[in-house]
Formats: sequence, structure tokens, C-alpha cells
Amino acid sequence: MSESKVTPDACSAAMHENDHATKALGMRIISTTLGGSVVSMKVRQDMLNGYGSCHGGMIFSLADTAFAHACNSGNKPTVASGCTIDFIAPGKEGDTLTARASERSRSGKTGIYDIEVFNQNEQLIATFRGRSYQLKGSIVPEVID
Amino acid sequence: MSESKVTPDACSAAMHENDHATKALGMRIISTTLGGSVVSMKVRQDMLNGYGSCHGGMIFSLADTAFAHACNSGNKPTVASGCTIDFIAPGKEGDTLTARASERSRSGKTGIYDIEVFNQNEQLIATFRGRSYQLKGSIVPEVID
Amino acid sequence: MSESKVTPDACSAAMHENDHATKALGMRIISTTLGGSVVSMKVRQDMLNGYGSCHGGMIFSLADTAFAHACNSGNKPTVASGCTIDFIAPGKEGDTLTARASERSRSGKTGIYDIEVFNQNEQLIATFRGRSYQLKGSIVPEVID
Amino acid sequence: MSESKVTPDACSAAMHENDHATKALGMRIISTTLGGSVVSMKVRQDMLNGYGSCHGGMIFSLADTAFAHACNSGNKPTVASGCTIDFIAPGKEGDTLTARASERSRSGKTGIYDIEVFNQNEQLIATFRGRSYQLKGSIVPEVID
Repeated sequence: MSESKVTPDACSAAMHENDHATKALGMRIISTTLGGSVVSMKVRQDMLNGYGSCHGGMIFSLADTAFAHACNSGNKPTVASGCTIDFIAPGKEGDTLTARASERSRSGKTGIYDIEVFNQNEQLIATFRGRSYQLKGSIVPEVID
Repeated sequence: MSESKVTPDACSAAMHENDHATKALGMRIISTTLGGSVVSMKVRQDMLNGYGSCHGGMIFSLADTAFAHACNSGNKPTVASGCTIDFIAPGKEGDTLTARASERSRSGKTGIYDIEVFNQNEQLIATFRGRSYQLKGSIVPEVID
Repeated sequence: MSESKVTPDACSAAMHENDHATKALGMRIISTTLGGSVVSMKVRQDMLNGYGSCHGGMIFSLADTAFAHACNSGNKPTVASGCTIDFIAPGKEGDTLTARASERSRSGKTGIYDIEVFNQNEQLIATFRGRSYQLKGSIVPEVID
Repeated sequence: MSESKVTPDACSAAMHENDHATKALGMRIISTTLGGSVVSMKVRQDMLNGYGSCHGGMIFSLADTAFAHACNSGNKPTVASGCTIDFIAPGKEGDTLTARASERSRSGKTGIYDIEVFNQNEQLIATFRGRSYQLKGSIVPEVID
């Protein structure tokens, strides 16, 4: 990822500040490093589907948020072009799910990120692979010396 | 899909009744047929991400719900094993997004479903392909004559 | 897709001329239209896997070739950035498999294409979704009036 | 993966013996362990596409073969239900590509495997994620004491 004087934490904070959706879902941005992030979410009753398990869309939302913080950590505005998720085990009400994102590759305007979602017992809940596409500009203004 | 005396509408109603997540997101199940469904959702402020667009997880949730109603329409409890989504255009606050699901194939315990998400101007927002896995039992009890 | 005076057939012919791999696999480019193509291949013994079915890589190769002819039909050199394939039924020795590609969306430098592979009995063998990325230049030189 | 007295190497050898496709492509099964495998292939002229790079279908075939050896290593006949591949960098004529497969999860009849393809300079060429589905029976007869 190209050099920026803005830290991954500052990028992350700027993104999260206006992110209504992740706040509504009670997500916590645990950490952000260059190309990586950790985000957690507690499964509430209003996240359950008709089978009483965490709705797949909520698990996806958690992974997608970790993906966003990882691929935007270099202060280049970057969006998801596509994602693949595989569901391994259900999430249950009261579970704390944690998504860990890491950069697999980045070249030109595109990148590949892997995100794994675990529950509080370190059981694998889902694997997610995201494809990123970099836009022009910067998230936080770069200060030129 | 195998024969059932329970209608797709009845399966859909039984699933939706206890689906806290789709109700919290204000989704409407417009219609369910054997192997298909149409579900809509209005993009609210609490669904926006840090870029002011509809969070990808919310678009995924809508498509995933249409997928669930389509693949459960034959009264066989069926879950998502995995999904792939490609984001084509952003959703905006106030948009009404509609997901249309259709069965591409189903054999043995697995199936493939295609879901497309459009906005109120019939602009394609996302394409989604879901893989289903059928469990034992039935959603609504089958009445035997 | 942007306007070009070069026909889809001419793009297709130029691509196929130097395509050693598709020739080695005996593929036939049946037709190419703007955003679409049809390609067929007969399953030979040297395409079988250890289970006596057509190797998944050969089915993928057929679909990927149809994808390439579809996404290059506008005379803009375009490559695959990623693909998802789902295998529905096995291909058998002697089968003639046909892949039909169609453009789902294209905007900016990226596109989404759906390819379905059928056997000679119109049985669905595999579904394939491809993501394309457009490079600079043209396949066949554009003549300016 | 469930216990078997048949070694991963024996499963691999039994599979490879009748695998016409991988032999035609000159693949070498470097190693097979429980849930993992390493397979290599030299890029020949008859594997090149119209752009002079290794055809995506050939890279997929290599990864898919590594996937097959990994998911069949426990002596349970297992097939690919679906795969996602992302192309990172092109393969060139004369390159030796190596695919390394590892099991991400396996429960019930389904599993998730990650395969990465590198060239001889350890440059990442493609990432591949495979979904497996276990059939009945065994690859090599189990000897009961």
C-alpha cells in the first residue's frame, strides 16, 4: 500500500465517525493496522432470522466493515466491488462475533482481503473474501511538509 | 423442488413471523412463488456507511432475505451455505431497493439461486448468487390426508 | 459498451487466432455478439479426472473462454479479474458442452458476465460468473475515417 | 477430517493414477498431507491464451487439482461443489506455477479449502477458494483388522 502520513487509526476514526450503519449494529472497531483490522459485534435479538440464528446479512455486515477498515487504512478511499462469504456455523443471540481482516494482495487500483469471523469461543463462524477498488482522493487530508 | 401441500406464501409467512432482523430493517416480503421471491427495503439513514451510501451489508441482507424466501418456498428448511455479491452501483438514502430471487438449479440437498437488487429507477445495484443447503424436517407441518 | 467500428466477430477472430489453449482443447467459437458469445467443446479422454468425469478445470476453461469472447467483443482489451463457478452436474466423455455468455453489467473499467454451461441434452452442468477489468488500447486497430 | 488407516499419499496416488487431465497438463503432485497438498505445473505454449499469458482455465485447473488432493486426503470421496478464483498476476510461458492447498474448515459433508498459486519467484498469481461436498464410500478400500 502506498505511503501516507495519516495513520491507519486516523483513517479508521474518520470513516467510523459518520458510519450510521455500523453504529446502529453496535460494532466496535477494536484495531486497525496497515492492511488489517479487527471489528466486533454482539448478536442482539433484532439480528436474528426466522430460524433464531444470527441473520447472514448481519454476519456479512460485520465482515464487510472489517474489510472496509482494512482496505481504507492507507488513506486511499476504497470501496468493495464484490465479496464472497461462506457460512460455517451459526451465530447465536448473545454471542460476541469478531471479524479479523488481512490484506492478501494489492496492486494498481484493486486488492484482495480475507476476513474470518469467530465467536467468543474462537469457533469459526464464516470466511469472507473481499475485492476492493480504489477511488481518487484521500480520506483524511494529507499534510504536505 | 419436491411436492408439498403447503403454499410458498405459507412458508414465507411462517419464516417472516419470527424474523427479527428483516423486521428491524423494515423489509417487505412482496411475493413468494415456488423457487422465487421479491423483497423490498427502504434505505434509511441508519443504513448508511461512512461514505454516505447504503452499507454493503444492508444490500446483502436484503438479497439474502429474498434468497431465504425463495429457497424455503417448498417447505423444506434450507439455509445459505455461501453467497457471492457484486456491487454495481451505490444505494442512496431514501431509495427503495427491491431484490428479486429465482432458482437456477436444485438437486439433492443443494441449490443455486440468483438474486438481483434494483432501485426504484430499475437501476441494477447488485447481483448476488446464493448456495443453499437443505436440512431435515419441514417449516410448516405437512398435513397427511 | 462503448462504440467501435470493429465487429464482435472480428474481435473474436483476432483473439482466437493466437489462443493456443482453446485450440489445444478443441474449442469452437460458435458466435460472438456485443456482450455475448457461445463456445463449445467436446469432452475427450484427456479431459477426465480421477473419477472419470470431466475435470472441473476443463469446464472452467470453456466458460472462461466464452467469458473472454463476450467481454472483449467491444474491441477493448479486457481481462478476467475473478470468477466464481458452481458445478451442478458432471460432464462425461463424449459430451459436447456449450457455454453461453451474456453481459450482466458494464460501467467504467469493470463488468459482470454470466456464463452457463450445458451438455448436448440441455442439462445445466455449471454456472459461472466473471468479473472483467478493461485495459488500455484496442484489440483490432480502429480505423478513423 | 475423520480417521482412516489409508494415508493421504495413498489416496493421492489412487486419484492421480487415472487422472488423464492432470497428466495431460503435466502436473506434478509434490506432496499430500491430511487436508493439504502441493501441486506444480510448468506453463507450456499450448496453455497460452490470445494475449500470450497462461489461460485462466489452466491456472484454475492447477488450483482445482491441489484442492482435489487436499479434500480427498482422508479417503472420503469428495468433489468440488463450487470455487472462486481471483487472478492477481499473469502466468508466463516457461513459468513453474505451484498451488498450495489447505483446509480452512470441514464439518458434516462440506468443507472450505484455500489454495494459493505462486510462480517460481514466489509471486502470488491467483487465490482460489473451494467448497467441497463429500460422497459416500471410500477412495481406497479400508482394511478392517
